[in-house]
Amino acid sequence: MRATDIIAKKRDGIELLDSEIEWLIKAYTADEIPDYQMSAWLMAVFFRGMTDQETAALTMAMAKSGEMVDLSLVPGIKVDKHSTGGVADTTTLILAPLVAAAGVPVAKMSGRGLGFTGGTIDKLEAIPGFKSTLERHEFIDNLKKYSIAVTGQSAAIAPADGKLYALRDVTATIESIPLIASSIMSKKIASGADKIVLDVKVGSGAFMKNKADAITLAETMVRIGQLVGRETVAVLTSMEEPLGAAIGNSLEVKEAIEVLSGRGEPALKEVCLVLASQMLVLGGKALTPEAARGQLNALIDSKQALAKFGEFISAQGGEVGIVSNTANLPQARYALEVTSSCQGYVKTINAAQIGYAAMRLGAGREYKGQAIDLAAGVILKCRIGQYISKNQPLATIYSNDDSRLEQAALVVKQAVSIDSQTVARPPLILGLVAKNGFVID
Amino acid sequence: MRATDIIAKKRDGIELLDSEIEWLIKAYTADEIPDYQMSAWLMAVFFRGMTDQETAALTMAMAKSGEMVDLSLVPGIKVDKHSTGGVADTTTLILAPLVAAAGVPVAKMSGRGLGFTGGTIDKLEAIPGFKSTLERHEFIDNLKKYSIAVTGQSAAIAPADGKLYALRDVTATIESIPLIASSIMSKKIASGADKIVLDVKVGSGAFMKNKADAITLAETMVRIGQLVGRETVAVLTSMEEPLGAAIGNSLEVKEAIEVLSGRGEPALKEVCLVLASQMLVLGGKALTPEAARGQLNALIDSKQALAKFGEFISAQGGEVGIVSNTANLPQARYALEVTSSCQGYVKTINAAQIGYAAMRLGAGREYKGQAIDLAAGVILKCRIGQYISKNQPLATIYSNDDSRLEQAALVVKQAVSIDSQTVARPPLILGLVAKNGFVID
Repeated sequence: MRATDIIAKKRDGIELLDSEIEWLIKAYTADEIPDYQMSAWLMAVFFRGMTDQETAALTMAMAKSGEMVDLSLVPGIKVDKHSTGGVADTTTLILAPLVAAAGVPVAKMSGRGLGFTGGTIDKLEAIPGFKSTLERHEFIDNLKKYSIAVTGQSAAIAPADGKLYALRDVTATIESIPLIASSIMSKKIASGADKIVLDVKVGSGAFMKNKADAITLAETMVRIGQLVGRETVAVLTSMEEPLGAAIGNSLEVKEAIEVLSGRGEPALKEVCLVLASQMLVLGGKALTPEAARGQLNALIDSKQALAKFGEFISAQGGEVGIVSNTANLPQARYALEVTSSCQGYVKTINAAQIGYAAMRLGAGREYKGQAIDLAAGVILKCRIGQYISKNQPLATIYSNDDSRLEQAALVVKQAVSIDSQTVARPPLILGLVAKNGFVID
Repeated sequence: MRATDIIAKKRDGIELLDSEIEWLIKAYTADEIPDYQMSAWLMAVFFRGMTDQETAALTMAMAKSGEMVDLSLVPGIKVDKHSTGGVADTTTLILAPLVAAAGVPVAKMSGRGLGFTGGTIDKLEAIPGFKSTLERHEFIDNLKKYSIAVTGQSAAIAPADGKLYALRDVTATIESIPLIASSIMSKKIASGADKIVLDVKVGSGAFMKNKADAITLAETMVRIGQLVGRETVAVLTSMEEPLGAAIGNSLEVKEAIEVLSGRGEPALKEVCLVLASQMLVLGGKALTPEAARGQLNALIDSKQALAKFGEFISAQGGEVGIVSNTANLPQARYALEVTSSCQGYVKTINAAQIGYAAMRLGAGREYKGQAIDLAAGVILKCRIGQYISKNQPLATIYSNDDSRLEQAALVVKQAVSIDSQTVARPPLILGLVAKNGFVID
């Protein structure tokens, strides 16, 4: 095979064979195909799209480009969750112990973050002593013992995806549904998931700005799942404002504990319950999402979910005392209240701007490998539709570097727009895509 | 500026600024932009196309990426000719002395060939003693003295085009009208042409298979010429069969002498007269193409054109005796007649296959730098529409390597299809594109 012929075929809109896609990805991963041919192919994919069969072949080729984690020794159906990314999205920290408490094994390989806040691994590292890198046997032992284990994603997982993503980033080929879908799915499959629940964020603060694109992405991933034998369900959730109240690593751990204790931001809790219900159904622990929800609420009310969180932290060497006393989490030396300079109804909250403010406060990375301030971030004190008086707090911002507060406060203030008219709250759950297609509209 | 932003802009169909294109080409030529970004941009151009303004900016950016030959010291309007490439296309060897004899200075920078036969420089090197590389001052001196000079194209001419072409070749981005048009025009402009006549080949044996694409390419180049102040005229000529009878370096020199002597294949002579007429009009030596044709025929009949060819060869150190006695040109040691195994009318002649046979005989290069057999090639003895008896010669093939004859004979034989029905000859001149648009249909 010749890379040029495969590029030309895609360019001309002819469906590629599985064997052609497999060869392309294998040769690219082995540095036998140069970046300049791959980027031309990626741009051709951007314009021509991919059939389901092609996207599934690309997904599996990327998954198989590195280690395929074998979780067959862990009893039960391993259900993984992935979010397409939002602001104040603390769902993983809440879902993992919640679902594990219901008996579904949660084997999570997470990344570090780049951008607004840290990734799940960064957030967990806010817990004193927490060990975020497990050897494969520790990971499997913990899964067997506690039904929950989280470790940093190894470079050995889907290396083709990592290499392709870096190339897409500098060649304006990120924004392609089949490329996004196969990137996400390849990592989940290589990580050993039997079934997958996807949280596809929609709205001004998400990568998918409109519902139609989000449905297309969700449907593509669900169909890939079907084609490769990993049942997948996608939930479309709103990202018109930050999901929870907390943006920042230590702050989000604290918020997770709040939600697991039956308190916390209702929108965040609701999204967690919806996603966790789907995970329980896929994991064979409930017949319907409604039944699952009942179980999940009971696990929160009885503090079993919170206890599982403590067990999980303890199993990975973390200071379990933070569960009962969050004051043991890293605390910022400086805080500043951001207040409203007018009164009225909150019309919009620019989630990306709030995320940017958190990053500037030290909660996120601007470049790979940058150290982050685990205590820094934003606690949002308003929601869309809420009435705000003049001088009422909109948010509190935190940092260990007081020189960063003033500018971040301004960014947060400008991110909240206030109107004299009442404002309706945007719907939170926009739909669900399962093997039978889009079911809620 | 960032390359990624320029790729994304083109990808999204937004017109690029001249300054963006200039920056891109300058940075790419200086190795400041990697191939993988350029190939993504090229593929985006393939899908989105370019406006005339963009194509003109790209043309000038590539022209200015290296030496801009200054021919202002040579009196007269310098008119250059370019062909998009065909088989048995000996026009340059004929046109150059013919037009020079009419007083239009012909300053030609030609390349070596890759593929079916050698380039103009290879063909001229079939003439014993011919010096194909002139210093810039020799080139200009000869132009002033004889109105004609031909030299190998220096790597300093439009290096950005060379670099981009090599990248396009391996990324399936050759087939883009604005990229083809700007590649051709940039080299002509950098070579110092004041005005340009283009021979756009159309048909099964040409790069442009159909007339509509050929018209689009021709119109694009004519509009580029207008935008950059180099008046350009394009003639669309047929390439349904090899243009002349000879394919091969020495064989084509001999055929050029035939045509300049008033003999030779009529189709080849006609295309030369049409192109040369346009060159005379652009060069200010005739008011109309019809008047120009009268002058050109007179120059052939009076042997002045042939004398100019001898003068040109002599000026560049070549053995002028070949003009009066072509037996002094390299002769192949082996020849084989290819005969028809049936009778009927010639329906099609696959020009690409005939060209391939010539290459296999040694007349062309399969890879850069390969030595070629100057005497090898094909003399075609049939034309579309001609009646052929059984065992009548279809062609004679020549080579210095007799092991190559048999296979090449088979290729030539299979390239000619014969039908029992009469076959109409395809029209030779398909139209002309000048500043007022397409004028013959």
